[in-house]
Amino acid sequence: MAVSNKGLILKEYPKGLPNADKHFELVPRTIDIKNLNLGENEIVVKNIYLSLDPYVRFTLREPEPEYVSVDTLLEKRVSIGQVIIGVGVSEVVKTNNPNFKVGDLVYGPVGWEEYSHIKSDFAAIFSPINKESLKDIPLSYYASLLKMGGLTPYASLISIGKPKKGETIYVSAAASAIGLLVGQIAKIKGLKVVGSAGSDEKVDYLLNELKFDAAFNYKKTDLNKALSEYCPNGIDIYYENVGGQTLETVLNHCNQFSRIVVCGMISQYNLPFNEKYGVKNLEIIFLRSITMQGFIVSQYLGTDIQNEFEKDFTEWIKAGKIVYREKVIDGIENIAEGFVNLFDGRNIGRTIVKVSDY
Amino acid sequence: MAVSNKGLILKEYPKGLPNADKHFELVPRTIDIKNLNLGENEIVVKNIYLSLDPYVRFTLREPEPEYVSVDTLLEKRVSIGQVIIGVGVSEVVKTNNPNFKVGDLVYGPVGWEEYSHIKSDFAAIFSPINKESLKDIPLSYYASLLKMGGLTPYASLISIGKPKKGETIYVSAAASAIGLLVGQIAKIKGLKVVGSAGSDEKVDYLLNELKFDAAFNYKKTDLNKALSEYCPNGIDIYYENVGGQTLETVLNHCNQFSRIVVCGMISQYNLPFNEKYGVKNLEIIFLRSITMQGFIVSQYLGTDIQNEFEKDFTEWIKAGKIVYREKVIDGIENIAEGFVNLFDGRNIGRTIVKVSDY
Ligand SMILES: NC(=O)c1ccc[n+]([C@@H]2O[C@H](COP(=O)([O-])OP(=O)(O)OC[C@H]3O[C@@H](n4cnc5c(N)ncnc54)[C@H](OP(=O)(O)O)[C@@H]3O)[C@@H](O)[C@H]2O)c1
Ligand SMILES: NC(=O)c1ccc[n+]([C@@H]2O[C@H](COP(=O)([O-])OP(=O)(O)OC[C@H]3O[C@@H](n4cnc5c(N)ncnc54)[C@H](OP(=O)(O)O)[C@@H]3O)[C@@H](O)[C@H]2O)c1
Repeated sequence: MAVSNKGLILKEYPKGLPNADKHFELVPRTIDIKNLNLGENEIVVKNIYLSLDPYVRFTLREPEPEYVSVDTLLEKRVSIGQVIIGVGVSEVVKTNNPNFKVGDLVYGPVGWEEYSHIKSDFAAIFSPINKESLKDIPLSYYASLLKMGGLTPYASLISIGKPKKGETIYVSAAASAIGLLVGQIAKIKGLKVVGSAGSDEKVDYLLNELKFDAAFNYKKTDLNKALSEYCPNGIDIYYENVGGQTLETVLNHCNQFSRIVVCGMISQYNLPFNEKYGVKNLEIIFLRSITMQGFIVSQYLGTDIQNEFEKDFTEWIKAGKIVYREKVIDGIENIAEGFVNLFDGRNIGRTIVKVSDY
Repeated sequence: MAVSNKGLILKEYPKGLPNADKHFELVPRTIDIKNLNLGENEIVVKNIYLSLDPYVRFTLREPEPEYVSVDTLLEKRVSIGQVIIGVGVSEVVKTNNPNFKVGDLVYGPVGWEEYSHIKSDFAAIFSPINKESLKDIPLSYYASLLKMGGLTPYASLISIGKPKKGETIYVSAAASAIGLLVGQIAKIKGLKVVGSAGSDEKVDYLLNELKFDAAFNYKKTDLNKALSEYCPNGIDIYYENVGGQTLETVLNHCNQFSRIVVCGMISQYNLPFNEKYGVKNLEIIFLRSITMQGFIVSQYLGTDIQNEFEKDFTEWIKAGKIVYREKVIDGIENIAEGFVNLFDGRNIGRTIVKVSDY
């Protein structure tokens, strides 16, 4: 018996900012779970919460001839007519994989659809959600905060940023889902935390709720002047979420032996190659012995730092040391609009879509 | 009694390529060594070999308002009328420093002049040259190869590049003093070595004398195509000497978890800020988890890696595993021209100036 399996497909490659109607289409499909034949290690999951992440924009690009593609998770592109892929919380409803049984709650890469048929390579990176923990922690937190959403800032800040008490960190897109956590982890580690965001409401939140040492609205402030004012001893760690001209200006304020954690460059994702901002002062990287290091959160899965993250975060959340915001959108019908809105800067914290009840 | 102490001073800040007559002047000064009063830990040295290094171009810049200066050795600027500072091999002729006695041969930062009066901060980074070793090794090698000249490629390639047998390294400005050594160290470590240089003569040298696995003339070749051809498995280590558009093209060929050793960006040194090349594809740094790390050779002085370098290099030179080229210019009269010629790409290996006999 077939059930509804609406899914969001890519209708057209966005050239600039994605548009919900023009580039996406919610297709009324069905899935016959009972009669579906599963290959070895495959599973079928019912999706509960889908996380809306800016990196998904990367998978929506037309192949570019001058660009030599490397097959990392984030660079796997979606073709026209295919369902968009993201991460989320789901329930296993059919399994041919010894690691999962029907009824298990799992976290991993799924389609933006009601049910996903997961092939063995993706099933290998799914992780279980302990149902016991749901007494203390809402299930949605696994989509937004407790899995990749928290591992991303934690693992990268610790392993690349190497924060030392008393140092100064500057976080761009500081009111993004990632930025909020970076700032709070840095405060726990004893750093001076300076952040920027694109609205006064966000700046208020950073200063008054999260107790950042300084925060400013980058749309109303000259970044160079703000960094001179708020980071008078220079920047020891730059947590890079934005890229482009921001990076160029920040480099001028970076100290000798400073670290740049390259998490993302959201200001550049929606620009075609020739309109991207060219950074001119990379010479500073050797003049000041700077380390600029990129990462993709999946590289930390299954490593020691993931265990430390889970231990620290559970403790910090219970102790109220980590404050969190998530925005829950109801229904897969609204997923395209939710995604497009990531790039207008209105959200504070992670946006997730509730696809079904649990 | 005063003796001649001709010195090369900065006459005018070069805006683009430096010009020997326009920007420099050899001034006929004298020094009265006997009657000179030395402060604590100061020394006077007679210069023997001066090394001509492109980084010196950095010290010849007018203070730029938008540029927040950090006081590293390489960023210390020379003012109009001051003597240019570089590194070289010298003999101590007067001393008020317990670490040095008259007649010692030393290596460290000195003026481009016949005699230099060394203040205590600079004296602290001078290192001794063992006279015993001169039986096997010419003194000039200490200016070109055995001190910073060899430590630069060795320490950075090992500690930042983390070379692993079977990996592919691409070296730009591969026939530069640094590049020649990077390629040879990488061959010793079992890597596939690909290099580029600006003349067919240099390419011949890389292929036939140094046995690089591949080399090409970047002035006659499309870099993107050449990298696709010679690095079919992508680049694991990019040894960056050139910067600008080269970096942009190389990034497209970098593998996941590859390392970019940022030694220098010589193509950008002679350009005013607004003419520098803006690199547009830095997003690849996080998409492929790349580490891009800069360094200044002085940071390795006095560390374990300096000892390993001296041990390995002495052994490799004696075993003929490292082949070396230096160009010796005679007389301080020719130093400005020698320096200016670094940027025309004619030299293979280090250029040094012989200022006095030993
Ligand atoms: N490397 C990884 O594994 C990994 C994993 C997850 C996320 N990321 C990256 O982390 C960064 C933050 O992601 P997130 O999921 O936390 O984002 P998010 O919560 O969706 O927030 C994105 C924020 O970015 C800011 N922004 C959007 N367009 C911008 C522009 N053109 N210029 C400057 N700021 C802009 C907006 O805030 P303002 O009001 O401040 O403009 C927006 O609210 C992104 O770069 C993302 O790609 C990387
Ligand atoms: N970080 C440190 O501590 C440190 C220490 C020493 C040197 N360095 C850097 O290492 C690099 C090599 O220095 P070196 O002393 O070995 O140099 P070098 O022997 O003087 O050779 C410089 C070579 O660079 C190439 N070049 C010059 N202008 C260029 C341009 N516009 N575009 C492309 N290539 C150009 C030329 O070769 P072609 O024929 O290939 O064009 C030239 O022969 C430089 O970037 C330097 O600043 C860094």
